[in-house]
Amino acid sequence: MKIDNPNPIQWQFSERAAQLQSSFIREILKITQRPDIISFAGGLPSPATFPVERMKAAYDKVLSEAGKVALQYGPTDGYAPLREWIANSLSTEGSTILPEQILMTSGSQQALDLLGKVLVDEGSRVLVETPSYLGALQAFSVYRPEFKSVDTDEHGLVPSSIDAVAKGARMLYSLPNFQNPTGRSLSLERRRELVETCARLAIPLIEDDPYGSLSYRGEPMPKMVAMNPDGVIYMGSFSKVLTPGIRLGYVCAPLPLVRRLELAKQAADLHTAQLTQMVVHEVVKDGFLDEHIPTIRKLYSDQCQCMLDAMKEHFPTSVSWTEPEGGMFIWVTLPQQIDAMKLLEQSLAAKVAFVPGAPFYANDPASNTLRLSFVTVPPERIREGIAILGKLIAGML
Amino acid sequence: MKIDNPNPIQWQFSERAAQLQSSFIREILKITQRPDIISFAGGLPSPATFPVERMKAAYDKVLSEAGKVALQYGPTDGYAPLREWIANSLSTEGSTILPEQILMTSGSQQALDLLGKVLVDEGSRVLVETPSYLGALQAFSVYRPEFKSVDTDEHGLVPSSIDAVAKGARMLYSLPNFQNPTGRSLSLERRRELVETCARLAIPLIEDDPYGSLSYRGEPMPKMVAMNPDGVIYMGSFSKVLTPGIRLGYVCAPLPLVRRLELAKQAADLHTAQLTQMVVHEVVKDGFLDEHIPTIRKLYSDQCQCMLDAMKEHFPTSVSWTEPEGGMFIWVTLPQQIDAMKLLEQSLAAKVAFVPGAPFYANDPASNTLRLSFVTVPPERIREGIAILGKLIAGML
Repeated sequence: MKIDNPNPIQWQFSERAAQLQSSFIREILKITQRPDIISFAGGLPSPATFPVERMKAAYDKVLSEAGKVALQYGPTDGYAPLREWIANSLSTEGSTILPEQILMTSGSQQALDLLGKVLVDEGSRVLVETPSYLGALQAFSVYRPEFKSVDTDEHGLVPSSIDAVAKGARMLYSLPNFQNPTGRSLSLERRRELVETCARLAIPLIEDDPYGSLSYRGEPMPKMVAMNPDGVIYMGSFSKVLTPGIRLGYVCAPLPLVRRLELAKQAADLHTAQLTQMVVHEVVKDGFLDEHIPTIRKLYSDQCQCMLDAMKEHFPTSVSWTEPEGGMFIWVTLPQQIDAMKLLEQSLAAKVAFVPGAPFYANDPASNTLRLSFVTVPPERIREGIAILGKLIAGML
Repeated sequence: MKIDNPNPIQWQFSERAAQLQSSFIREILKITQRPDIISFAGGLPSPATFPVERMKAAYDKVLSEAGKVALQYGPTDGYAPLREWIANSLSTEGSTILPEQILMTSGSQQALDLLGKVLVDEGSRVLVETPSYLGALQAFSVYRPEFKSVDTDEHGLVPSSIDAVAKGARMLYSLPNFQNPTGRSLSLERRRELVETCARLAIPLIEDDPYGSLSYRGEPMPKMVAMNPDGVIYMGSFSKVLTPGIRLGYVCAPLPLVRRLELAKQAADLHTAQLTQMVVHEVVKDGFLDEHIPTIRKLYSDQCQCMLDAMKEHFPTSVSWTEPEGGMFIWVTLPQQIDAMKLLEQSLAAKVAFVPGAPFYANDPASNTLRLSFVTVPPERIREGIAILGKLIAGML
């Protein structure tokens, strides 16, 4: 059957394929999935929050009532009733979002890929926070932009620093709520300033918002898309409020852009599974998230507080960290001389994992930073792991 | 809430976004979904073949037994037991496929996008059949290749015509079984010649095989990947043998390439839904497809024969067409002077739809060709629609 003596292929990859690197986080995750390791490295939501029974009932219902439709090819833009539900949930008194502005995506990671594909040429300037979400840097990198970092301080992105790097920027990518990796949120004032600055400079502003509804206290902040619907691209996801494994997200964009994104999606994967969208619509349409999300908030808030308390007890005073009011991450700044990669080597030997901060920087990585996630680790293991980290840091001083 | 007087964005899209066009087929499909239209335009499998109860039972079982795992993030390369099952199904006596060579994708359309992303630079030469699958042309176009068409005759792709266009080619894209759009299949002899030619020229050969198991008679043909596993990239899909709406396909590639594709997929959408993969594995692992696929073959074979009989009765003798031995499509060649687009205008007015052939050509479209699908239309409507088309064609002569 086999042919004789084929010439071996000398694989010639595209120039963009040379940009491809495995996410450092996903590499660490492979090591840290062993149960004997206390892992603060994950970006995974807690499976304790997955509404399995509810999902099961919805699959049963959708397949029983509309199985042939749910299992057939569907429209590229998505399942219309779900797009309507999302448009309604994003609309405010002063600002109406149309269902036509919503494109369903295979997780919000796909929205990042599509935005890169449609907005970025080789060398195009893309503005990002310092640090920023690693998955976004990865997705955009494929299209070979010139990343320019926008300054951040302890309150997050500093809008007044945008002008200096704005020239020719194709977009500014931001995570205003409980940012990954820092856990920081922008104040209402900063949001307005950010939206106004981008509007003045006519730079499309991306508002990536997977964690927005996971605030531990008080009401969620207003969305920037409501402040300037013609200039802000909003990205949402069901991964952190329902379940990530179904891969369902969406992007809300001004009409000229969303039609381009839709064409790019058609070429990329035709459409996102119809069944998944119908099931999620079935689950969310009657207000389930209103009762479900508070249970996630409570769990994460308690574990966050537990980690903050343990850090206060065990970390040397020269270490500082963010105190998130929602979301899944705490950001730690070590004394200048400590390299988080070196700390990781030691901590892995002591069976504790985290993610070093350097990969989250598009430019000038701060090697003395790291990200901790508390959401999948029970309190006693959080205390144990933080005590070990504290001892290791003290030993490196 | 809204800011005052934002500057309007002058959307500046990437150069590749300018290549994006909506699939002509998807545009026609929007028109032809009305129930009063007899549509031969679709590329959709018949929903009569979807094993809805079986899928429902599998969703129930997977969510009951492993809900938390199925709903969590998963590995980029895919669900290991399903990759093993696929590798086994592709392995032959003389040629073993490793699970590591399988990358699960969000439909096989995504494999096309990833192949373009990883193998094609602007201006890279990509070889395609004449005509070829429109979705592949669309997916590759995004990366701005130079398409070169390889000759075909009534037996499909002509391997001896490859040398003339081979120089610097990054890949040759082929559909050897019941090709979309022509319905043609390559003989065993041509397959060997194609594999040998590509091996001699060291051109990666893509074997896209969504329809391979839908042969109406006899055993499926040997796969080209078994003839040269180091030089052939095989693409498979569950869309035509199970259901398309779940968006599950895969690519089998030599290890250096599959690792690059995996990195590209990680940046594009992290991974394909874990739940979907577990459910499909649950459905297929005990041989279900062996009993299920023959029922699809029977349905499609009967409807194909019905259409062929009707064409013989109603089409003028100056019209010729393929006689597929499997798959979903018949390819029609009209007399030179008839433009299939003009015929479409008339036939839509008479409530019959099809897809003109021109968009399937990367170069030099043959405007007197068209594609007919028989799989979703019941026999009496097939006869009715073909009679109408025959009358319209006769009127144009």
